[in-house]
Amino acid sequence: MTDAKHIQLAHGGGGQLTAELIEELILPALGGGQEPGQLADAAVLTARDEKLAFTTDSYVVQPLEFPGGDIGKLAVCGTVNDLAVVGAQPLALSMGLVIQDGLELGLLRRVLESAGRAAREAGVAIVTGDTKVVGRNACDGLLINTAGLGAVRPGAALGFERLCEGDRIILSGPLGEHALAVMSQREGLNFSADLASDCQPIHELALALVDELGEYVRFMRDPTRGGLAATLADLASGAGRDIEIEESAIPVNRTAQAAAEMLGLDLLEAANEGKLVAVVAEQTAERAVAILAGTLAGRQAAVIGKVGPARDDPIVEMITTVGGRRVVQMPYGEQLPRIC
Amino acid sequence: MTDAKHIQLAHGGGGQLTAELIEELILPALGGGQEPGQLADAAVLTARDEKLAFTTDSYVVQPLEFPGGDIGKLAVCGTVNDLAVVGAQPLALSMGLVIQDGLELGLLRRVLESAGRAAREAGVAIVTGDTKVVGRNACDGLLINTAGLGAVRPGAALGFERLCEGDRIILSGPLGEHALAVMSQREGLNFSADLASDCQPIHELALALVDELGEYVRFMRDPTRGGLAATLADLASGAGRDIEIEESAIPVNRTAQAAAEMLGLDLLEAANEGKLVAVVAEQTAERAVAILAGTLAGRQAAVIGKVGPARDDPIVEMITTVGGRRVVQMPYGEQLPRIC
Repeated sequence: MTDAKHIQLAHGGGGQLTAELIEELILPALGGGQEPGQLADAAVLTARDEKLAFTTDSYVVQPLEFPGGDIGKLAVCGTVNDLAVVGAQPLALSMGLVIQDGLELGLLRRVLESAGRAAREAGVAIVTGDTKVVGRNACDGLLINTAGLGAVRPGAALGFERLCEGDRIILSGPLGEHALAVMSQREGLNFSADLASDCQPIHELALALVDELGEYVRFMRDPTRGGLAATLADLASGAGRDIEIEESAIPVNRTAQAAAEMLGLDLLEAANEGKLVAVVAEQTAERAVAILAGTLAGRQAAVIGKVGPARDDPIVEMITTVGGRRVVQMPYGEQLPRIC
Repeated sequence: MTDAKHIQLAHGGGGQLTAELIEELILPALGGGQEPGQLADAAVLTARDEKLAFTTDSYVVQPLEFPGGDIGKLAVCGTVNDLAVVGAQPLALSMGLVIQDGLELGLLRRVLESAGRAAREAGVAIVTGDTKVVGRNACDGLLINTAGLGAVRPGAALGFERLCEGDRIILSGPLGEHALAVMSQREGLNFSADLASDCQPIHELALALVDELGEYVRFMRDPTRGGLAATLADLASGAGRDIEIEESAIPVNRTAQAAAEMLGLDLLEAANEGKLVAVVAEQTAERAVAILAGTLAGRQAAVIGKVGPARDDPIVEMITTVGGRRVVQMPYGEQLPRIC
């Protein structure tokens, strides 16, 4: 590689500089174990599973590094989690980088090393990728797209239509840690050191539920953009059933709560990047909470609500801590741009 | 959807506006047949094939629309082609959109309709996606990432290591049509109407070769960024063998050639988006050309060179039309930024 400490447009030309960038920085940082020279146009995998999950997400978070994570870790965890919530074990990830001309190579190396670490921790390899470089006004530093392939557990039977009256809604931990950690960094606010993004893989939580409870697990989702509010509104609308949650039952991170109050944000609508919302049959709710609480990522898991009767125009209602009722709506637009 | 004719940041918030954009514009344009409300975090596919190909590419081409194609068609064809050259039938595509605040909805609809049309023509569905919106200085209109999943033909036995001395190099058509069509558009040059991008799926060509010739097909690639020069330099280096091509044997598009001369570009290094380079055993070369020439996309196919002996420091040489010899090198950096 040249001596330059920054990305140049020429790194994206598909020639010698692109090859050097990939072989000397990207592959070692990701730690994928690919041999230089073995990079084909597509990775070939052996899969004996009949049901495969396939997902993609682009990550545009600003700043690129934030307390508790960075765009690389986020891109791996986000896609691992999208596979997890359909009951799939992650098998392989792809990673497409769009890099701004002038990006510091040290920063690129840090976020890719972080992505590689997250992938190893989640037990999944980044098997194929792509690198483009664009001009200085054409992207903010770095955009990452990851796509993921997973093997769906044979016992998984998930879907809006599987919800029954009385099913319980379970949340694996407190809300808004990702959104508030990123917003605090962006606004230059200095909360105590314990406000970090919850960015983490949740496939162990999701797969443990499916493996132990099988078809008693009706639905799972990770409440990212739009937060718990968007997840529950979508669930009520998709299932055609009312949903009722209790504010007092929702796990709380006091620092995130204080930050949300200071910034005028609603924790229900704030993005999470390492939380699981699961709907399970009433009789398995206690067991589900115990399963999640036995993991580090789910130690604050709680039953937060239940599924109501079928309705033509279903709503999500929250019983507030003071005993009132508040309708929880699908957030309209953009509360927090570039949060993931 | 609101009355606005342009994308707003709020379209990326993960709330009601995002859902409307997806259900009212993106899904109908792509024509994927997904029912609104059935959009899970990941698509679930049934695959009985044991060997799967997995690939990704991000597309950053400027301008977004150009003679012969647009970023949507390019994003579909490029990923279909990356699957094709490892001998895989495309099974499913993902599509991640990063849209600039203010993008005209009409333009977005046009390029997505074009992507949907290209996918239908290639016989593959776009099964999962993601939409992000970023600020006005954070991307140029639209970036698209596609990832693709394919079923590898059981008879495919492709790889650098399979090359033998005497194998023939086949090119499916003339060089540089994509690069020159885009550059002409960008520079405001007005060549005759027949200079259009070659952007097209080539999986029928690639799979026809593998199906008819099996292990006699040693290697395939689509010469995109870096052009034929990068493909052959990579091939020589990966196989550890010299390669010799004949300039007079390379199919020519006279308009692309004239445009390249005017812009000072080397057709060997110019990007193609609908061409196949295949290495086949000597005794099957004629048959391979006939197979390709029987398709619309491969009607100008020709044998352009051959594989030489194993060497420690292999080179690619071209016998020029006047009988000289020129070493063809891996392009160093960026000849044409944002070409794909």
